[in-house]
Amino acid sequence: MDRYESEDRADTFIPHAFQERTIELGEVRLNYVRVGNPNKPALLLIPGQTESWWGYEAALPMLAEHFEVFAVDLRGQGRSSWTPGRYTIDNMGSDLVRFIDLVIRRPTIVSGLSSGGVISAWLSAYAKPGQIIAAHYEDPPLFGSERKDPEFMATDGSPFALWNKYLGDQWQIGDWSGMKAAAPRELFPWLARFILIPDEPSQNMKEYDPEWGRATCEGTLMGGCDHARMLSRVKVPVLFTHHFNGVEPATGREMGAISAANAQRARELLIGTGNRFDYQLHPSMGHSMHAQDPALFSRTLIEWSAALRAR
Amino acid sequence: MDRYESEDRADTFIPHAFQERTIELGEVRLNYVRVGNPNKPALLLIPGQTESWWGYEAALPMLAEHFEVFAVDLRGQGRSSWTPGRYTIDNMGSDLVRFIDLVIRRPTIVSGLSSGGVISAWLSAYAKPGQIIAAHYEDPPLFGSERKDPEFMATDGSPFALWNKYLGDQWQIGDWSGMKAAAPRELFPWLARFILIPDEPSQNMKEYDPEWGRATCEGTLMGGCDHARMLSRVKVPVLFTHHFNGVEPATGREMGAISAANAQRARELLIGTGNRFDYQLHPSMGHSMHAQDPALFSRTLIEWSAALRAR
Repeated sequence: MDRYESEDRADTFIPHAFQERTIELGEVRLNYVRVGNPNKPALLLIPGQTESWWGYEAALPMLAEHFEVFAVDLRGQGRSSWTPGRYTIDNMGSDLVRFIDLVIRRPTIVSGLSSGGVISAWLSAYAKPGQIIAAHYEDPPLFGSERKDPEFMATDGSPFALWNKYLGDQWQIGDWSGMKAAAPRELFPWLARFILIPDEPSQNMKEYDPEWGRATCEGTLMGGCDHARMLSRVKVPVLFTHHFNGVEPATGREMGAISAANAQRARELLIGTGNRFDYQLHPSMGHSMHAQDPALFSRTLIEWSAALRAR
Repeated sequence: MDRYESEDRADTFIPHAFQERTIELGEVRLNYVRVGNPNKPALLLIPGQTESWWGYEAALPMLAEHFEVFAVDLRGQGRSSWTPGRYTIDNMGSDLVRFIDLVIRRPTIVSGLSSGGVISAWLSAYAKPGQIIAAHYEDPPLFGSERKDPEFMATDGSPFALWNKYLGDQWQIGDWSGMKAAAPRELFPWLARFILIPDEPSQNMKEYDPEWGRATCEGTLMGGCDHARMLSRVKVPVLFTHHFNGVEPATGREMGAISAANAQRARELLIGTGNRFDYQLHPSMGHSMHAQDPALFSRTLIEWSAALRAR
């Protein structure tokens, strides 16, 4: 039986402190929560790959004092539709264009982590006119997630390859213990130290369609979306928070979601658009600031948003 | 100098009998004409590859009596933006979702030729809820334009390959006479008889970005869009007009945009959706009914639309 819609996977989910809602977008049904004050600026939160909206759960109460916050599950995440063969950054961006039109219905600040950070960049370049006020890219794998990039990490050694190999498209394999056993030898050494796999399937991974991992490795996720071209088309102010990164001494391999060189390349392109550009380096922060330090994440967005309005 | 926007290519265009307009969609500017009665049903016309909106010019006066007609240039066509690296059916479909939202602003009947017919199918499956009333697919290369299909024609021997090879992305090569000389030996024999290349660049080809041809051949045009899955998701009544097709006796090669077998496959999927499905075989009609017989094309749409309303 297909498990493409959340009711087909109802055994997967757990309760949360915020009310979940669903919107029919045409191709997919998107799950989201909406909290905060409608008189405050709208803020759209875009999770990273293998995360669901509730990755932001700890930050939501702090953010809700300053924004009306919308946290979504993308296609392939959480309670949103799974879409075999159709995991591309362009489709995910277009889903959010529709979401802003139909649900938020006013100009919006966006913040996304990792793949969601690339979607935040996509929206800042390609959304409908007037939809986006400003965009936060939280540790986004710009360039590095394009197949042509020399630091391309979405191949053997990456978690995306591991997840898809052992869990399968739509969890058709589901060999969690095989994945756990393989991780130390199949992941890049630096990643094997970061990614700790529990004995039982974790809640976030149960809510994730591992086909998205395959799309990442095969290059179709970013396939039609050249990052340099996209960044040169950005139309709004951008905040780039850059977390842990560096070179692994033993292997010479880049560690982290985006290298210093690629961050610099993004910075030059973004400054070249003529829009305000803020860059923050957080060298000891893990990949997800909103998970690791929700207070700092919230404060960062609140202060940046206030600074934009004060100009 | 880039020639991505129509003002960069202003020397390319010729006057037309209808007023052209432009709408900014975020990533692209779309050129279109709008004619007819706003109290009649909205009709969106989607040209085929290497065509511009004015391929419908002869049909517009007839259609304008029964519809409010919107004829567009897609990205890579006519006066709309050229978008290197970003010619995908998903992006083209999403452009029209935005166009319907921002310009038409009400439920719409769509009709598209060839690649435009596949986009018509895309809209009938994946548009925003409520945008599409019904869809006409005019001789659409369903399945055959997917790389995995055995009758895939978008490779050496196809016009798409020829155009891109001799004209180049964004016309960077522009060797029209070389293309004309090569056509008899490089095109499939049956196509070489159909496609007559004039001595000077034709108006429609001057308005076309040949990179779209490369995207067709490399499979990226349809890459993320499985046709069987798309057709199984169609939500509205469909009219499929199927034109000249058959097997070339000497080579056993399928001729025409879509074979009898692939038309049958589409038919089964569309009937399976439970929506009304009309099929018309026009075995002696060339690929574009709206160009070859605009009166029949107009009458066909008018009568089908009336029949839908009469149910």
